[in-house]
Parts: sequence; C-alpha cells; structure tokens
Amino acid sequence: MGKVKVGVVGATGYTGVELLRLLVAHPGVAVEMVTSETYSGRDIASVFPSLQGLISLRCAKLDTKEVASACDQVFVALPHTEAAKVVSDLVQEGKRVVDFSADFRLNDTAVYEEWYSVRHPAPELLGRAAYGLPELNREEIKKADIVANPGCYPTSAILALAPLIEKGPVDVEDIIIDSKSGVSGAGRKVALPQHFTECNESVKAYSVAEHRHTPEIEQELSRLAGKQLRVVFTPHLIPITRGILSTIYLSLTEDRTTGEMVDLYHEFYENEPFVRVREEGELPATAESRASNYCDIGLKVDHRTGKLIVVSAIDNLGKGASWQALQNMNIICGFDETEGLRAAPLFP
Amino acid sequence: MGKVKVGVVGATGYTGVELLRLLVAHPGVAVEMVTSETYSGRDIASVFPSLQGLISLRCAKLDTKEVASACDQVFVALPHTEAAKVVSDLVQEGKRVVDFSADFRLNDTAVYEEWYSVRHPAPELLGRAAYGLPELNREEIKKADIVANPGCYPTSAILALAPLIEKGPVDVEDIIIDSKSGVSGAGRKVALPQHFTECNESVKAYSVAEHRHTPEIEQELSRLAGKQLRVVFTPHLIPITRGILSTIYLSLTEDRTTGEMVDLYHEFYENEPFVRVREEGELPATAESRASNYCDIGLKVDHRTGKLIVVSAIDNLGKGASWQALQNMNIICGFDETEGLRAAPLFP
Amino acid sequence: MGKVKVGVVGATGYTGVELLRLLVAHPGVAVEMVTSETYSGRDIASVFPSLQGLISLRCAKLDTKEVASACDQVFVALPHTEAAKVVSDLVQEGKRVVDFSADFRLNDTAVYEEWYSVRHPAPELLGRAAYGLPELNREEIKKADIVANPGCYPTSAILALAPLIEKGPVDVEDIIIDSKSGVSGAGRKVALPQHFTECNESVKAYSVAEHRHTPEIEQELSRLAGKQLRVVFTPHLIPITRGILSTIYLSLTEDRTTGEMVDLYHEFYENEPFVRVREEGELPATAESRASNYCDIGLKVDHRTGKLIVVSAIDNLGKGASWQALQNMNIICGFDETEGLRAAPLFP
Amino acid sequence: MGKVKVGVVGATGYTGVELLRLLVAHPGVAVEMVTSETYSGRDIASVFPSLQGLISLRCAKLDTKEVASACDQVFVALPHTEAAKVVSDLVQEGKRVVDFSADFRLNDTAVYEEWYSVRHPAPELLGRAAYGLPELNREEIKKADIVANPGCYPTSAILALAPLIEKGPVDVEDIIIDSKSGVSGAGRKVALPQHFTECNESVKAYSVAEHRHTPEIEQELSRLAGKQLRVVFTPHLIPITRGILSTIYLSLTEDRTTGEMVDLYHEFYENEPFVRVREEGELPATAESRASNYCDIGLKVDHRTGKLIVVSAIDNLGKGASWQALQNMNIICGFDETEGLRAAPLFP
Repeated sequence: MGKVKVGVVGATGYTGVELLRLLVAHPGVAVEMVTSETYSGRDIASVFPSLQGLISLRCAKLDTKEVASACDQVFVALPHTEAAKVVSDLVQEGKRVVDFSADFRLNDTAVYEEWYSVRHPAPELLGRAAYGLPELNREEIKKADIVANPGCYPTSAILALAPLIEKGPVDVEDIIIDSKSGVSGAGRKVALPQHFTECNESVKAYSVAEHRHTPEIEQELSRLAGKQLRVVFTPHLIPITRGILSTIYLSLTEDRTTGEMVDLYHEFYENEPFVRVREEGELPATAESRASNYCDIGLKVDHRTGKLIVVSAIDNLGKGASWQALQNMNIICGFDETEGLRAAPLFP
Repeated sequence: MGKVKVGVVGATGYTGVELLRLLVAHPGVAVEMVTSETYSGRDIASVFPSLQGLISLRCAKLDTKEVASACDQVFVALPHTEAAKVVSDLVQEGKRVVDFSADFRLNDTAVYEEWYSVRHPAPELLGRAAYGLPELNREEIKKADIVANPGCYPTSAILALAPLIEKGPVDVEDIIIDSKSGVSGAGRKVALPQHFTECNESVKAYSVAEHRHTPEIEQELSRLAGKQLRVVFTPHLIPITRGILSTIYLSLTEDRTTGEMVDLYHEFYENEPFVRVREEGELPATAESRASNYCDIGLKVDHRTGKLIVVSAIDNLGKGASWQALQNMNIICGFDETEGLRAAPLFP
Repeated sequence: MGKVKVGVVGATGYTGVELLRLLVAHPGVAVEMVTSETYSGRDIASVFPSLQGLISLRCAKLDTKEVASACDQVFVALPHTEAAKVVSDLVQEGKRVVDFSADFRLNDTAVYEEWYSVRHPAPELLGRAAYGLPELNREEIKKADIVANPGCYPTSAILALAPLIEKGPVDVEDIIIDSKSGVSGAGRKVALPQHFTECNESVKAYSVAEHRHTPEIEQELSRLAGKQLRVVFTPHLIPITRGILSTIYLSLTEDRTTGEMVDLYHEFYENEPFVRVREEGELPATAESRASNYCDIGLKVDHRTGKLIVVSAIDNLGKGASWQALQNMNIICGFDETEGLRAAPLFP
Repeated sequence: MGKVKVGVVGATGYTGVELLRLLVAHPGVAVEMVTSETYSGRDIASVFPSLQGLISLRCAKLDTKEVASACDQVFVALPHTEAAKVVSDLVQEGKRVVDFSADFRLNDTAVYEEWYSVRHPAPELLGRAAYGLPELNREEIKKADIVANPGCYPTSAILALAPLIEKGPVDVEDIIIDSKSGVSGAGRKVALPQHFTECNESVKAYSVAEHRHTPEIEQELSRLAGKQLRVVFTPHLIPITRGILSTIYLSLTEDRTTGEMVDLYHEFYENEPFVRVREEGELPATAESRASNYCDIGLKVDHRTGKLIVVSAIDNLGKGASWQALQNMNIICGFDETEGLRAAPLFP
C-alpha cells in the first residue's frame, strides 16, 4: 500500500514540532502539508532548525480545501473553537481527523459552554467524535471520524484512576489530583508566566478549582463509574520543559496492601503496551517517560491514614499530546498501534 | 552591650553558609567559631567563596569545650543523634542552643524512636527544649535552653494549617499535604538522587507515607487541636535550588467563601511580621519568598467539591531553616525579633 | 539630615524590582515615587508580590514634573532614546539622575548613532554625564549630573581588563571576550528567545560581532589605553536567571606566571570593596556573586600557548545593573559608598 | 544475516543507558550482555526505569571471556587504563571493539602519559586502533580492530575546525576554543561539582589550560595541518543536562565574507549526513541537536577585527558519545552508516 498522506494544521507549536518529529520517522506516512499563520511562506525547518535535513516543506496559510485535497489524514492543532470549524470542514470532505483541541472532548455541550464560556461551535459533530484515550476507548476510536486527542493532565489522571474506578476498593466520591506540569504544556505563545525569568526556580499552583481539564477528567471517570463524579484538580507549574506528575489521593474502603493494589493495576493494564505499572517500592519520575508514549504508574498505601496514593508520570508532549495523537492515527489508519512509538524514553 | 558571641557547629552545609551570610550582617552578634569535620583547617571563605571579604575564620574540628568557652550562643547543624550529644554538652556548660536537627523536635521519645529507628540520645533534655516556631510558640522559646529549629516541610505545613486547626470549619481528621521542595533541602552531601543529571528536568514523589517530618507536623497540629491528628504527607523533589510549596486539601464542614477564609487567616496572623496572607485571587509562588523569612499563604474554596485548598510557600533555607534559626536566636537573646531578617525576598 | 527622596522611573522591570529591594533597606533614602506605563494605578507590591509588606506605593504614569517635585534623586530605567528625554527634563529641573539606558554611555554621538541606528536624542548633555563604573571613574561620577550606569556585559569585561590595559604585558590589540549571560539580562518584556521552553536546556551565541555593548567596552578600554582599541565580543544566552561569566583571552607579550598576574590584579584593586581577585588556582563561578555588588576575577596563564585567560563573574542585576546604580547613588549623594550593598552573595 | 550480538561493558553510566536506548531500536543487533560492577545482579531496567518494557537483561560482573563468548561486537565504557586492559583481552579474542575511553585516542604514548600521568597500558595495540570520527577518518575506522570513540569536546571542536585547517584562509597557529558543556558530560559518578545545588544557576570555567581533551584536539588538527598545532581550550560547566556549544575564534589571513565561509563549509561537509552547516545569519543552539547524531555549525566573520567565529553544537551524549559510537559500529559491522541514527533531534 502507498503511504498515507498526512497534513498538520497549526504545525508550529510544540505539539506540532513533536508530531512532525515522529511523522518523518514513521514508515507508513508522508507529510504532505503543514500550515501556520505566523510562519506561512517559511520552510518548517527554518522555523525549527532541529528538523533541518529531515523535512523540507513550506508552511502554507490554512486553506481547508487544499488540505483536504492533499491529505488523507489530518492533525489539527489549533485553539478551541477555531479547531472545530476546520475539523468540521475536513470531516465534510470525508477526511479523518485527530484534533488536539478541547472542542470534541466533552460530549455535553452545556459542560463545554460552562467551562469555556463560549457556544459550542459544532454540536452536530459530537456524535462522530471519540475521546482518544486508546487504553479505555480503542473500539470507539476505530470507528470515529474525529478523534479528540485528550488533554495532557486528563491523560495522566484518567489512566492513573481507571483501574480504581472499575475495580478499586476506594471512595470514588472523594478524589484529589495534585498535578505538576512542565512549561511546554502552556504552548509556544509567549506570555509573562512562561517567561524564563518568571517561572525558572519557582513553583506555583494555578487555576485552582477552575482548570478546564477538570470536566474532561470527570466525564471519563464518570463514564467508567456509571455515575456522576467530581474531582479536586490542582495544576502546578514547575520549571522543567516536559513532564507531568500527578499525585492522586483516595480513601480505601477496605484494607489493602500496596502489593495488592499493584497487582490490580498490573492486571488491568496487562495488555497495554504504553502503560507501565511499577513494582511495589518504586514510583515514577517524569524523566523516565520523557520523549515517549509511556504512562508510568506507581502506588503506595498509607496504612496510618487509610489512604491510597497513586502517582502517574507522562511526557505532556508525549503520551499527553503528540505521541498519543500518533497512536490514535495508527488505530484509525490501520497501522500497528505501536508503529513509530517504540523508542525508549530519553534519560537523562 | 557588647556583641553576642556566636558559634556555628557544622558550618559547611547549606544551612551553615546561609546562617553565616545572615550572621555577618547582624549588628548584634560576632561569629567567633565555626566547626567542620570535612573542612577543618580551611578558611570558611575558601570553602564558600561567596563569603570572601565578609568573614575570615578557620574551620575548627569540633571540641565542645572550646565552643562553649568562645561562644555565648551556639547553632548546631549536625545530623540527628550526633546533634543531641553536642547540644547536651553545650547546655551543660550553660549555653543556649538553636539546634537544626530533629533530636529535640519530638517530645515523645517513642515517636522519635519509631520514625528514626534509633534510641533517643538525650531524653532527659526534652523538658528544656521548645519547638522553634515563633508564630505558635514564642513564649516557650523565650524560656527554653534548647530551641529545636523546625523542619522545612513542617514549617510550611504547620503555618498553613494552624488557623484552621484553631478556628476553621474543616474536618481536621482528613488532611492531605502535598509538598514540592527544591534540592537544597537534601543538604550538601552528594548522593545520586541529588546529582544534577538525575534530578534536573524531572519531578518525583519520595518517601511517600514514610517521611520523618510527618510526626513533627502531627505533633504540632495535635497540640493545637487538643487531640491526636494524623496527616497524609507527600514530599516531592523538583529541580529548583530553594523553595517549598505545600498544597493542602481539607473538607469544609460549613459553607465558606474564599474571602471569608482569607479574612480568618489575616486575623490569625495579624501581628506576625513573617507571615503574609495573600488576598483572594492570589496564590504564592516560591520565588516570591526566596532568600527571606516569609511564609506566604494563599487560599481557595472549591465550591463544587466542598474542599478548601491552602497553598503555602517558603524558602527551605529561609523560614524553613537558617532565617528561622536566626529569628529564634533573636528571641532568646533579646534582640528585636526581626533584626537581620528584614531583607526583601530575591526576585527574580 | 533627612532622608534623600528617591524616584524610580520605569520601576516594573527586573532592574526596577531589584533596585527597590535595595532601596527599601537603605537607611538614607525614602522611595517617594515609582512609575510604570504598563502597571500604572496598581500597587507595586501587587506587581511584585515579593515586596509585599515592605513597600506600598502605587505605580504612577510618568510625569517628569511630578517626579521632579517629589524626588531629589531619580533612577531612570527606560529604553534608550525614551530615557534621554526624561533625563533631559529631570536635569533641567536640577535633579541628579542615574540612568540605566545606553543614552549617555557613549560620548561620541557618531558611535552611538552607528550602533543604535538612531539620532542621539540629547547630545548637548553628554558633557554633564559620567560613565558610572566607580572603580575607574569615581571622581567624574562625583561631579556629574547624569551617571550613565554601565551595561552588564561591559561591567564584567572592563573590570576584568582594566589592570591589563594599564599595566599588563599583553597585546591589547587582540582581545577576545566570550561572555555567558543569564536570561534576566534580556529584561521582562516577553519574547520567544526568552520563553522558558525555548531557552531552557540550551545554550547559544547571539548578536555575534554586532552586540551594542561592544562600543561601550571599546570606549572605556581605549580611554585607559590612550589609543583606539577594538575587541571581539561574543555574548551567549544560558539558562540561569542571574549571572554573567566573561572568559577573556589575550596574548602575553612577556613571560609571566599566573601568580604574578594575580598579584598585579590584587594591587590594582587593592582598595576596591567590590572587586574580589581570586587566589591562584581558583576561578569564580557566577553563583558566588549572585545578589551582590561583587565582581569576582580569576586568572590563568596557559604557558603552552602564551595566552592569559581572565575570567570575571558578576550578577547582571547586581554589579551589572541595580547594585552598581545604588553604588553610584551613594557616591553622588555623599553616602558611604558601600551603604546598602554589604550583603553577602546568596549561595546557593 | 542474523543479528549482530552486542555487549556493553560498563553499561550503567549515562553513555551506557543512551547506547542501550539506541541499540534496542537498531534492527541489526541484539544486546546479549551488559556489565556493571556497581549494579551486578540487578536488571538493567531496574537501574534505568526508562528502559522498562524495552530490555530485560541482568547486569553481569565483568568477565571478558564471557563477554567474548557471548558477543561479536563490544562497546567498552570504562575509565581510562581499566578500559585498555579489557579492550586488550577482547581484541585478543578476535572481537571488534568501540572504546569510549581515552586509552586509544592518542597515538603518541608520550603525550598520553604527560596528560594522564600514567603509563600507557597497551601501547602495542595503538597500531590497530583508529580515531573514531567518521567524517575525517572513515576508511581507517573500517579497517581497525579498535575504534577509539572521540571525546565530546574534541568532536565539537575538530568538526568545527576541520574545513579551515584543510582549506581556510586562517592563522591555524592561533586557535581559541571556548566550550560550554552540560553536566551529563561529567558522568554519573556523584561529586560535589555536579551536585544539583552546586552547579544549578551557575556557570564556571574549569580545568583551564589543563583539560585532557586538549591533546586529542591538537592531534587531529595537526594531522590535518601536516604540522604540530596548539590550541587554547577552555571548558565551562553550565546547568543543562545535555549539549556542548563550542565558540571558536580565528584570525582570517585574507578577507572573506560570512557567505563565502559558509560555502566552504557546505562544500566540505556536502556528503556528510550528520553535519549540518547553517545558512548565513543562523547560528546553532544546543537544543536543536539534542538527542541526535548531528553536529550543527554556524559561522560569522567579524569584519571590524578580522576574526572568524565558528560555533558548533552537539549533544555530548549524542554525536559526542553514544550516537557516534553506534555510527562507528555501523561502519565496522557493515550496516548503513545512518542505521538507528536517523531520529530528529528532540526539541523542545
């Protein structure tokens, strides 16, 4: 079979460059088109010199007709609401799309409108979209026209919690998620909080009790639980480039050892190539999944307080964005799901 | 009055150099002796070139008799158990001591022995020691022969929780403390986890459910509560030099707005020069208290889940160690409590 | 005598906040006015929470008449050309000014216009301005109406080279200056090269052979040499917040040992409180002068090649900007030159 | 053909883990044995959790006979002198070896003994060793039994200078190399200078005029020049994990534009897959070659001073160590030279 023709709309952010890095090494695809408003007319390898010698393609201004005619498969990496319009056009042209925005992640438009303070731009398409977390949703992804690539925080939180929601002896009504993220998660658009001198050598919480990834986490956990769940979610900004660590606190409803909890997770993720459950006594550090599609999970029971602490680590640009997007592409295009994603994490 | 003659036992760690930095600028003291086993015979300013031109003093091998004869006031910055022996000798000689170790922080030897897995080296002295958190314990510190300078994590956690334990409409039986610390907190002794290449660009949790600062936090909160409390405490290592951010989760037992909770804190710390409560809508970043004696506290009610989130920030070598030690010295020596501690934090 | 009334024009950049940090601790001054276009109307301590509890002053929009009527002494921290206009007005009102911009550093308007590509905004004032490097220019500073506070790179380079230009057995016609700077040197205005994710974990050279600090270095060295000198100057951006290290290469014209060169420097800077010459075998690291007014200098002769290597380290916001500005203020206001500047550097 | 059986002696340093990361993805090899004294008996994936799920192999204590019987091709990553003994045994067994140490890099034992202060452990083998810089030495590498993998600094310096030595209008008698290295270059053995708190937020020069990579640079440049050359080489430590930037200064002997110099480099490296010469106006940052085998080179003529400035960037664990080692293995094993090395650099 010939190579799948791929386009990347909004290619000059960090998710874009990471995706291109993977696509140029993927044996089954050819990158046919990259678009950028800021850098239109410039070669993508002059925008990202890291790509010199690996790809030579001029950034085009976005024209969905042209994208549709040049490509079979399109990744859309645009801000929410802008994304939906482009996705809508592309789906109309019969294309399959992996969308990095939040537009098709929430299946309840009321929830979307509450958290994003804007009318949903394409409610009629929600039925054709799947939430792109393959470990929990593989079959729906296969059939979807639109794969809503999950947010970085939700990926780390949902994978860490899924086994408990389904099988765990925990109080699912009281979940606390304390997440720490590297700065690349905020994107490439310059702003004072991401200015080096402001965020270097500092830690802070932000958007406490208000972060837009909250409803996304709740939706997927609620689906697993079969009832509406709420979570406390606190993101923090830490001065690293890549990585999210989520430390999650739950109350055990029955006595369990750490070993038993580890076993439960091992079993749950037994056949998943990209979830690594750590042995008892080991907890993940973000550096161990850097530049990879892995989600690493560790567990610890605090017998003194009856709490279970779950720690998950991902690369926010890896499993939290571009690598997972490629995993979704592999699924919908019929490639081996691990194609182009088997590299060992970069340590150190 | 003449200057108070000061000695620093174990001066060549990070708490030592930070303390010396403050002492050389303090108008009421003269540093008479510094000791170090590793660097004995070397000038302290060749060990720490930052101090060149500011102090010239040869590191002595520790001889408690000599320390006692040269100094009125001694800081002891040694590992636990070693510290107790030296403190014991110094107290016997009639000296007042600020001790950086854990040896005199826990007033129940059984708890000490459980968490430190060693027999308490000087139980007979516990009655003469005070826990050196001036905001909660000023009067006892004044009268004590030994001030047990608090741990860095406990300082950040206890100050953040004290107003709630005394007055807050929260469930004090269910407290979750998620702390993020810079690497200097681990000290100057080289070890793989603090090797630059290992911890740079990474985050991890460590000593989960087992960290030795847990009983210290519990002791002080229990004292305030008038009953035995337990907390979940999870420390994390993040790649910054200085700073601890503690994010604390509690369930409100009555409805409160963020503004009401901020008011409660303002009132509680009204007369405290080194606790800064942030206005509603603001949360502290560690960079804002770097190189200072401040503890900054911010609050947020999550109405969706009924949780209160408290965030506190300190410099682990500042309010979390050497600056607080100097505050304690000011108290026991009769100086203005803020003497030598009024500098604005270093930002950026 | 009453306190000197001080104003800071353009107070909300990094040099502004660092200067305010020093001014609030200086016993001889009172900060009467701070201006900011971006943050006018806001309390300076809400712009920089590090200052909370230490200063409470609303940022004013700039009105030079008001500044002149409220203040005796003014610091101007504005972009070049804007600065000159404000300085001009203030001088007209009889104020003494320390100016952070480049406008009054170059005494040859042709050189200014060549490097800054703009007409000099106030050539008539150049005769009333002094280049504010006290170690080389103290007497002129005392008499000047305008002190042109030196650039950060020039401070590190000129102090490292001055003893050689005056007395050194080196070829002054062939000087190579390779400088490495922290990111705060680029200021607080957001831009892609200073975005955390772009500059973290990376090093690069920039403005090679074109940096505007070049003529400033050449002017001062030429003045010392009594003839026109040219230098090669290459700045680099490294991912630290504060600090400049300049590594300088010269050819020895006569045989000398490292010890002899160290002696020459010791002698040259014998009475200077803020230059620390390291002993043979020691070279400075930037962390050792962080948050201070020190310039640390180390030397090494490479006998194999006949080269002398000089290494100097400063804090770009310290001796490279705000601390030196305060030193200049001390001089022109008649304070002890070290007043408010005696703190030990912050290590770690 | 079957897979080449590969062994890694000394696998638990940073060059080891990076090499394993590449080897597990290389289609032509199978890793049969890894040795480690420190971690013998432990699974390599428990030493480096980043490798979990990708390789499962117990670290063996080194036994050269066993290595020789299990492997066709061996990488030796041991300290100098230890390395030579092991290499010697392996060569005797007919194995081909890529050696990471300095033992076979210098072909003059007198030079080795002068800089390493130790007798050369295997002078008789020098004739069978080639200096493993493929761009300059490909044919010799093909025929060698031992490939001496170059030092990280020499790789960056020699590739940046080679075109000039062969063809450049520069004074090759006066070369200044100012290099800035990430901390991983110092290896995984803990030591105070690489302790996070010591080197974070600081820059310093070290081993000035004494670094052991100097004779290696001089040897290769002298070979190209056909006469003995000396260089000034100054390494600096900067707080990043990976990357070396070398800024090199030379005097032009004839007038040249930057464009002409760029052309000369383009021509020289025309057929080299791993050297990327930047267009005029662009200079490399280390982040652009992170986690790759690229050496990026940029140039700038300073017409005011007649100097040429060459800037080269590599990943010290990439082209500076493990990736180049794999390139050498590809050459001696007859693989496509770029096999397993085509990944795009990791940015950000």
